[in-house]
Amino acid sequence: MELTTPGPTVGVVGAGQLGRMLGEAAGPLGVDVLALDPTEDPPAAPVVSGTIAAAFDDPDALRELAERADVLTYEIELADADAIDEVAAATGTPVHPDTGTLRWTQDKLREKEWLSSAGVPVPDFRSVDGVESLRRAGEELGWPVMLKAREGGYDGRGNVPVEGPEACEEALEAVGSRALAEALVPFDRELAVMGVRGAGETATFPVTETVHEEEILREMVVPPRIEDDPDTDDAEAVIERAREVATEVLDAIDGRGIFGIELFQRGEEILANEIAPRPHNSGHWTIEGARCSQFEQHLRAVLGWPLGSTDARGSAVTTNLLGDVEEPTPARLSGVESVLRTPEASLHWYGKREARPLRKMGHVTLVDGADGAAGLLERAREVREAVTFEESAVRNERSE
Amino acid sequence: MELTTPGPTVGVVGAGQLGRMLGEAAGPLGVDVLALDPTEDPPAAPVVSGTIAAAFDDPDALRELAERADVLTYEIELADADAIDEVAAATGTPVHPDTGTLRWTQDKLREKEWLSSAGVPVPDFRSVDGVESLRRAGEELGWPVMLKAREGGYDGRGNVPVEGPEACEEALEAVGSRALAEALVPFDRELAVMGVRGAGETATFPVTETVHEEEILREMVVPPRIEDDPDTDDAEAVIERAREVATEVLDAIDGRGIFGIELFQRGEEILANEIAPRPHNSGHWTIEGARCSQFEQHLRAVLGWPLGSTDARGSAVTTNLLGDVEEPTPARLSGVESVLRTPEASLHWYGKREARPLRKMGHVTLVDGADGAAGLLERAREVREAVTFEESAVRNERSE
Repeated sequence: MELTTPGPTVGVVGAGQLGRMLGEAAGPLGVDVLALDPTEDPPAAPVVSGTIAAAFDDPDALRELAERADVLTYEIELADADAIDEVAAATGTPVHPDTGTLRWTQDKLREKEWLSSAGVPVPDFRSVDGVESLRRAGEELGWPVMLKAREGGYDGRGNVPVEGPEACEEALEAVGSRALAEALVPFDRELAVMGVRGAGETATFPVTETVHEEEILREMVVPPRIEDDPDTDDAEAVIERAREVATEVLDAIDGRGIFGIELFQRGEEILANEIAPRPHNSGHWTIEGARCSQFEQHLRAVLGWPLGSTDARGSAVTTNLLGDVEEPTPARLSGVESVLRTPEASLHWYGKREARPLRKMGHVTLVDGADGAAGLLERAREVREAVTFEESAVRNERSE
Repeated sequence: MELTTPGPTVGVVGAGQLGRMLGEAAGPLGVDVLALDPTEDPPAAPVVSGTIAAAFDDPDALRELAERADVLTYEIELADADAIDEVAAATGTPVHPDTGTLRWTQDKLREKEWLSSAGVPVPDFRSVDGVESLRRAGEELGWPVMLKAREGGYDGRGNVPVEGPEACEEALEAVGSRALAEALVPFDRELAVMGVRGAGETATFPVTETVHEEEILREMVVPPRIEDDPDTDDAEAVIERAREVATEVLDAIDGRGIFGIELFQRGEEILANEIAPRPHNSGHWTIEGARCSQFEQHLRAVLGWPLGSTDARGSAVTTNLLGDVEEPTPARLSGVESVLRTPEASLHWYGKREARPLRKMGHVTLVDGADGAAGLLERAREVREAVTFEESAVRNERSE
């Protein structure tokens, strides 16, 4: 294969932090990223070759994106599969990952059905369209169940645990009646595997422990802290099994690209939870922590280039910098010197203008070839606790 | 300190590959890079927030750069110190590194005088302004001597070895009569140290062996292969001494920023050769090979932010991708799959539109935590030999 100047252009639907990190990975490869996003000054804008300001499903804008790009991809699950298919057909520009995959990942019921039919182990689930079917699901799966909206939920929004038949109505009011009920898995921990499908090859990154709080992903720990767990005898077998399940998912998917594969672990049992057909928060540690990052892998995959090595460079911990504010406020993170002064820490700022409650504003990754993940996690938490978006902290710092 | 959106803007004179890699380092930090360059589509353009198309010394363009930036810096040694001083004075925008440093590094005689007066060991040298002074220099220093143009030389251009008095006239014709003569150092190898001066702190990166061929820098090897050398007893003492000399240089310099410090090594003796007040080819390995790259360090330094860790992540080798063409030709590198398929290799493409003989078109860095530098160098050479800008190779590949 050849490299030229200008190089190939990857057209991306979405220009949020994932688009930004795709842009950052594209520079060294000589790849141009062109991103479409309705937001004014979206996070990706300063680092990509170009942006198109329009709604994600704007047919004219999508057509321009397809015409100017050598391949189309998307970094948001809200991308409109039909609109993308249409411009792809009209322009002949290939789309990766496959829009079929995008469609079933947009619907949590179809996702579970697809995984199930591919032989991938998933929690027991039932389709729900009202109080009656939810009650029946609870009886069959055993109370409590997790009620999930089929579409549009993310970061735990749209998920409600239902304790028993008397709680069904309220839960359906919150989630809507286009839903599914899942057996509540009493998991030991959540794991995730980033997998990548290239042209005729696939690869998985090392298994990642994902730490959620209030259903929001807070921390990624590589390798997972399974060995410290008295309930699990054989940490290696768990890791092996997680990678096996991820590979099953990957082998069943169509098209090329990177996929975030979220898993539940209980003892040595692994169940698949959700699949994201795009770079994923659980893989941000790969930027510093792996030989070739999830973002570079995605670019290589959608372009049909050889994949890179998914090997880890050492233990890694990523901590998200979430908006620790009560209400929207101009983005101003204080205490940043504590990040910059931590030798193993790398800062990633997403360039969002406004901090909002629990909004992902950036992340910090700590990598160490020698030290274990537990020590890194401790230092990551110290770093995160030293920074804040709260106005009062800024005022205090200034008045010092 | 605080991070905001938009973050600070660093105005850079020059938008070549060094500006490009500064831009790539700026994204994750939330720093905007604005670069000034006369070239159409300069290498940095696709990855920086903005460019200004104008001559490096264009007063209006420099003024715009200074007005839009929070701090000014430069990535080319041809930057016009007077013009920069003028806009800095007019706008109040600080300049790093100090333009005084820029001035003496632009004149090889003043550079040697400055180093010498700072107590830094350098090869013996004499000022030369014609045949007579060159002959006298040769007699005093001992023939042969290296005649160097005081200004404008780079990549070995402007350097001519002079064997004896009879060769003086011809050498001066090639180099010009504004020159200096240096005692020819029969060095064992060339070393380089990237040093960084922040706000009240300095740091040096691990010592790098630089491999030149036909006076062009080809390869960087970290750590240097001194242990394999029968002439040098104590590799650690050599490394220590090189870092010591680099620190002497760094301590004597004014202002903040990253500096490339080129050294000659003979046994345990270290002499300073040249100083570059900017990111330097010998430090490209730090992007993957060090915790915090030379480019991120430079941004941190000029902004007055805390410096990062200069620790290496393992052994590292960088091989430059030079234009292996006889005459200018559109940039088209074939055989790139060999780079992408080497697990420890990272590709850096500079986005230049035209390959020219020995022009720096990109580089590849190999990092390994376990394997030594010698093994990496071997693999780096295999990778480099598998790629070419030659048209015939492309044609052969296509016809296969």
